[in-house]
Amino acid sequence: MDFAEQAVAARVASIELATLNRDAKDAALHAMADALAAAEPALLAENAVDVRGARDAGTDESIVDRLVLTPQRVAGMVQGLRDLAALPDPIGDAVRGWRLGNGARVTQIRVPFGVVGIIYEARPNVTADAAGICLKSGNAALLRGSSSALHTNRVTVEALRAGLSSVGITPDAVQLVEGGREITGEMMRARGLVDVLIPRGGAGLISAVVEGSTVPVIETGTGNCHIYVDAAADIDQAIGILLNAKVQRPSVCNAAETLLVHRDIADAFLPRALDALSQAGVTVHGDGATRVFSDAVVPATDTEFDAEYLSLDLAARVVDSLDEALTHIRSHTTGHSETIVTRNRETADRFVAGVDAAAVLVNASSRFVDGGEFGFGAEIGISTQKLHARGPMGLPEMTSTKYVIEGDGQVRV
Amino acid sequence: MDFAEQAVAARVASIELATLNRDAKDAALHAMADALAAAEPALLAENAVDVRGARDAGTDESIVDRLVLTPQRVAGMVQGLRDLAALPDPIGDAVRGWRLGNGARVTQIRVPFGVVGIIYEARPNVTADAAGICLKSGNAALLRGSSSALHTNRVTVEALRAGLSSVGITPDAVQLVEGGREITGEMMRARGLVDVLIPRGGAGLISAVVEGSTVPVIETGTGNCHIYVDAAADIDQAIGILLNAKVQRPSVCNAAETLLVHRDIADAFLPRALDALSQAGVTVHGDGATRVFSDAVVPATDTEFDAEYLSLDLAARVVDSLDEALTHIRSHTTGHSETIVTRNRETADRFVAGVDAAAVLVNASSRFVDGGEFGFGAEIGISTQKLHARGPMGLPEMTSTKYVIEGDGQVRV
Repeated sequence: MDFAEQAVAARVASIELATLNRDAKDAALHAMADALAAAEPALLAENAVDVRGARDAGTDESIVDRLVLTPQRVAGMVQGLRDLAALPDPIGDAVRGWRLGNGARVTQIRVPFGVVGIIYEARPNVTADAAGICLKSGNAALLRGSSSALHTNRVTVEALRAGLSSVGITPDAVQLVEGGREITGEMMRARGLVDVLIPRGGAGLISAVVEGSTVPVIETGTGNCHIYVDAAADIDQAIGILLNAKVQRPSVCNAAETLLVHRDIADAFLPRALDALSQAGVTVHGDGATRVFSDAVVPATDTEFDAEYLSLDLAARVVDSLDEALTHIRSHTTGHSETIVTRNRETADRFVAGVDAAAVLVNASSRFVDGGEFGFGAEIGISTQKLHARGPMGLPEMTSTKYVIEGDGQVRV
Repeated sequence: MDFAEQAVAARVASIELATLNRDAKDAALHAMADALAAAEPALLAENAVDVRGARDAGTDESIVDRLVLTPQRVAGMVQGLRDLAALPDPIGDAVRGWRLGNGARVTQIRVPFGVVGIIYEARPNVTADAAGICLKSGNAALLRGSSSALHTNRVTVEALRAGLSSVGITPDAVQLVEGGREITGEMMRARGLVDVLIPRGGAGLISAVVEGSTVPVIETGTGNCHIYVDAAADIDQAIGILLNAKVQRPSVCNAAETLLVHRDIADAFLPRALDALSQAGVTVHGDGATRVFSDAVVPATDTEFDAEYLSLDLAARVVDSLDEALTHIRSHTTGHSETIVTRNRETADRFVAGVDAAAVLVNASSRFVDGGEFGFGAEIGISTQKLHARGPMGLPEMTSTKYVIEGDGQVRV
């Protein structure tokens, strides 16, 4: 099938999916999990082919690491599908409802988008995760994975489709989109065939999809997350939050990338903070005012303040005021998660009001900005756009709504 | 100022707007209304220049009619601003909130988008409406009206800005975007400067904006709205709803454009319906099975079934079943409002589930799908897209959200 045929098959499948009740979808998720678990030997064998190919192509080991499947990672994918079955079904939820003056009843209900396209990079677990989230939210999934994971993705999708068939649901609810680069372009221009595109991956992938698509896009998470340590900060708290946000898992989008320190607390805070960061293996890229506190701080440029390091690196700058911190954040934010540490209520409120981001944190680590931590149970990504969904996206964010108006002959006068 | 400078000024204004409380915004709306009312003589004089220009350019009288301002229409614009002041402020509303296991509090609150671009056609009332809706929802407005209304729009925006200044709010909250066609292109590619674009106008304008924008777009309403008269319909009810939906105001997007009739009720329904439509001055474009009932029915082609007439024309077709009606609607719908007339509960449910549109009506006129009828008080348009907002958009649909997480030093373990 070419892409247009796949998209039409997905549309037809989406009509069936939209009417499935929760029990049917949960049974399908367990069947998909069973089939995936049974396919483990094939999955590991085909994954080894992908991994060998990637290494032969000279791929960076950190990317190869994302590509590798182990029995433990397969078990994680299987469990992810079963966990989805345990979550409430968002479809059919009444968002709100009222009666018109003439007695007709209006109800706004959650409905699936229809056909969702996911464009993603090497991580093979995204294939099962995205397929499961789409299925539970009643959406047909068109999965466009990386060519470097093609063998792995083929076995995964084959298993998921077999699981669907085994419970009498059309396998076209989950399809792998294969083919050269031009197919990604076709997918991005498939307005009317694809309802929503969600890119998952690095900043380059996301901006290419955002710029090139005529299909509506949900932009997910690059995070140049700032921590502003205010003059009225509790220093112990600030050091704890800074270290956690930077070091606990540096490779993720909700990790801290830039530290801003109020000049009035710099003398008391920075020597201790820089020492703790250094002990944790963090390289600090600082402005002049930061560098006076430690020879280990390397010079920062404006490039540094725009960096999403995703590594044990941190940009740092001393600011004269909350306003200077807000101005800095406005110039460099990716709109993900911004943190203030302060005991001053008014300063906290001004920071919360003045920062334009998916999440603003007061005296807590930005690592909490996560679907799992929020209790959403499943997450397709963290939206950094303002339209439709902002922040961690759970199942309700994978839906649209429909107004149902029921009357007995009402006409407009 | 060139467009980029205007956009930066709008961004700066948006920071101020985001922190205004309701009282300040309502005072601004009344000041804008006062200034607009005071500008009536200038408004009518400059509008006469636009109208003369349009007539000289040979513009169709129906479009000239939309362009013309009268004292009554100016009064409507002024009252529209005052009505907005009476509506609740969506900004700051807590959408939901909970505590994490570690005690940190999460609150999702409504915030403005920031900078909203409106691209619209000749109706000068859109200038004041859109400016007011943006102001009340805390958004800075970049208004790109038609060049045919330029003189009118200049006076309108000047008055609105004077109103803002008079209460100490930056006038850059409302700006008119002038210049040639290339400026529309700049606006559509101003990702990062403009947060959302909303096109208001005909299908051509909307699809040009949707296809050409890298800025997120909210697509508003073209409506090829269907009425399906089921075998189990109450015939009197069906005729009443059909006439109301087609005739009460044919030029709007929620008017009926296509009639589908179940074969089993055609003999009883169509002669009466065609007679009533004919008496109301409606030209019916029917398939062969419809034409046997009246010589006045002209032949329909597939083009007809895709038409958004916005006039006293109606496409009509006889279908063999609910499924055939659903298949027809799926092929031709613009996703606006679709209606079934039936006394059969199960058929109604299948229709509601099977139709993918912003609104589905059971035994009621599609003319109710409207922000005013829904009680929203103000409407920027009717969204026919699935992302962010679907159906009539009120003030809450003109906002985004932000998660605020407040703790006392919580870190992730």
